Amino acid sequence: MGSLVELIARKRDGGALTNEEIHLLITSYLDGSLADYQMAAFLMAVFFKAMTDAETVALTEAMLRSGRVLDLSSVPAIKVDKHSTGGVGDKISICLAPLVAACGVPVPMVSGRGLGHTGGTLDKLEAIPGFRTDIPTADFVRIVGEIGTCMIGQTADIAPADKRIYALRDVTATVESIPLIVASILSKKLAEGIDALVLDVKVGRGAFMKTETAARELAEALVRVGTRAGKKVVACLTDMSAPLGVAVGNANETREAFEVLHGGGPADVVECTLLLGAEMLVLGGKAADPMEARTLLKKAIDVGDGIRTMERMVEAQGGDPSVVSDPSKLEVAKETVVIHADRDGFLRSVDALEVGLSGVVLGAGRTRADQKVDPLVGISVLRHPGAKVKVGDELAKVHVHKKSDADAVMPRLRAAFVIEDGPVTLRRLLIDRIAST
Amino acid sequence: MGSLVELIARKRDGGALTNEEIHLLITSYLDGSLADYQMAAFLMAVFFKAMTDAETVALTEAMLRSGRVLDLSSVPAIKVDKHSTGGVGDKISICLAPLVAACGVPVPMVSGRGLGHTGGTLDKLEAIPGFRTDIPTADFVRIVGEIGTCMIGQTADIAPADKRIYALRDVTATVESIPLIVASILSKKLAEGIDALVLDVKVGRGAFMKTETAARELAEALVRVGTRAGKKVVACLTDMSAPLGVAVGNANETREAFEVLHGGGPADVVECTLLLGAEMLVLGGKAADPMEARTLLKKAIDVGDGIRTMERMVEAQGGDPSVVSDPSKLEVAKETVVIHADRDGFLRSVDALEVGLSGVVLGAGRTRADQKVDPLVGISVLRHPGAKVKVGDELAKVHVHKKSDADAVMPRLRAAFVIEDGPVTLRRLLIDRIAST
Repeated sequence: MGSLVELIARKRDGGALTNEEIHLLITSYLDGSLADYQMAAFLMAVFFKAMTDAETVALTEAMLRSGRVLDLSSVPAIKVDKHSTGGVGDKISICLAPLVAACGVPVPMVSGRGLGHTGGTLDKLEAIPGFRTDIPTADFVRIVGEIGTCMIGQTADIAPADKRIYALRDVTATVESIPLIVASILSKKLAEGIDALVLDVKVGRGAFMKTETAARELAEALVRVGTRAGKKVVACLTDMSAPLGVAVGNANETREAFEVLHGGGPADVVECTLLLGAEMLVLGGKAADPMEARTLLKKAIDVGDGIRTMERMVEAQGGDPSVVSDPSKLEVAKETVVIHADRDGFLRSVDALEVGLSGVVLGAGRTRADQKVDPLVGISVLRHPGAKVKVGDELAKVHVHKKSDADAVMPRLRAAFVIEDGPVTLRRLLIDRIAST
Repeated sequence: MGSLVELIARKRDGGALTNEEIHLLITSYLDGSLADYQMAAFLMAVFFKAMTDAETVALTEAMLRSGRVLDLSSVPAIKVDKHSTGGVGDKISICLAPLVAACGVPVPMVSGRGLGHTGGTLDKLEAIPGFRTDIPTADFVRIVGEIGTCMIGQTADIAPADKRIYALRDVTATVESIPLIVASILSKKLAEGIDALVLDVKVGRGAFMKTETAARELAEALVRVGTRAGKKVVACLTDMSAPLGVAVGNANETREAFEVLHGGGPADVVECTLLLGAEMLVLGGKAADPMEARTLLKKAIDVGDGIRTMERMVEAQGGDPSVVSDPSKLEVAKETVVIHADRDGFLRSVDALEVGLSGVVLGAGRTRADQKVDPLVGISVLRHPGAKVKVGDELAKVHVHKKSDADAVMPRLRAAFVIEDGPVTLRRLLIDRIAST
């Protein structure tokens, strides 16, 4: 085993580190004997020279073991979680977790906050009056056992090495590295004590991965490494060129997710929920195949089991459960400013990135991790790619506290809607499905 | 101009930074708004993506301007310095500077300390009783003006950005980068207020650059960038496969350098001194060509001008000048352990790296910048590559305080001498000469 500087040099020169050497790097980083600047140099070397799957597994496990791994052995069933690489209007976790749990598969979910143009589940949940995402891990384990699902934020003792490295990558231009992304995602998810994981790898303008090639590379690495780490893993590549659903914001997105539990909600949100939920039920052993799983999920919607599970979860986490049965009780900013079509034609595209960035400008998102979001403001995307529109039709609504607040985003938001003459070909939500072979 | 993280990302992606952006990086680093870990990531990105000559000039000048540039305008002549990339037994500066100064070319020399297997001029000079290398810059300027040469260490106000970056590179595996090496060397040398620079780029086992290709790349970059920065620059590629001269250590090397001033010294040390000195005299305008320059240098030896200049310099820097006229007064460790040839034949090679590392083990060198060296210990390399040897001949002597101190280095030192049957082809000292076109 080489010295720490030699380990950096070996990676720099394209060599592979052993399991022990990677654990040494991480433990040395946490105890201070490897400095931030040395980790930064190592991360940049990984950016250029990547890591083998064995190295990525070792990094995942070293970061996982840097903190506490939740013990969910008291919950007897196969525990399955879902992770999305992030998109615009992606509120799926909020309707997915209670539906899957209602079908008998426990979903212990540790979520993140929004950053940049992509939103975060924690911010959306916190639009529920009284809802707490920072509950003790003992309560988390108990709630998963009793209700079937619980949704919290990354506590200080979950993968602390990932927390520090993630922050370091953000300021050293080392974010875009497949092995580093894989280890970061999997170390946090594996710390939940799950048995299986469904990954929603978003592709397109509003996603972290802009091209299908890049997204596929990430999805395949996640599946390979997650499988080597002993978990059942399936990844779905889904389209994120346009926002998902109508609502982009926080309270309005949570409202929209609740509508899915009631049998409503936009078609793409429902489809994404069923798609990912079916994978989770199959992994959780509650359905033989995705068809059967979809039937179970739809039944959980029809008979109201999803609503009841969510009500219990919200109540257990200190929130007002009445907003689940009546989503209109979730407050949204009072004023609206409408964007109209300026010509006839077909909606060619709705740029998810521009819609997401508009949300940030309104205050629904943040550009720095220490900023607060305004849960009430947001955008309603009323027309979706492929829609036939006439001049004057409403394309979107901006929800703000006073109308002038919308001024800053109007030009960019208008430009996000591209209307053309001919009918357009629609992208399918599911681009591909990747599972371990 | 992008944000600091965007600048790191641009270099990472192979783009070039503007002059202003590089200056921003360096000033931000010094004022703390660019953190060590960000500089480390940038340095690793430079390791992989290199820099254009324009970027390297900008980096050199930004590091140069981070501190004080000595004002030698009070010294009317063309000021010329020499820099060696470091080798084993390289005591050339100590005889070169006084000889060149004696011929009328002022030599303001800021030198370094030894690290790893290569020695440093400062350590060797400090073997002279009383000699100070940390004299104030005002005195440095005065001594160069009055005596023609002065030899000091890098003060805190000379290129402080280089000092910090150099230390950072050492612990982040980013040392071996041509543009970073070039900017580091030139920023320090340009801070001396010189007009021209002769570079001795060493090649071989005992050098930083092990191959001629790598050394040539460095030499060419140094000449190109130094020329663009407005200086006259010549680089000599010289062989460093075997130690230079007989003495390897500190006091013994200084003694050997003084012997050159007296007309003695090993042939290769004399030749290296004349070679580099001739380039300096031509650049300094004191000789029309190297032949004429060599004649002047030999005359400075013959009439004792080199000795007198060195005596005055040593005295001006607080040292005992009598060691210059009588080098045997320089104390060396009392005990010697001899290495004998174990067979007849021809000396194929003497591994400079192993001899240098043996010196470090004896205490003549250091592995960390904060260690002290023992000026008295060292090695005498009595036979050089090409020599015909008989079994029992003395190959080397180890100079130690007590004989057992040599035990730790004997096997490695013996192995450094390779004896073969056939006569061997000798390498020439000068491999190539590179000047701006």
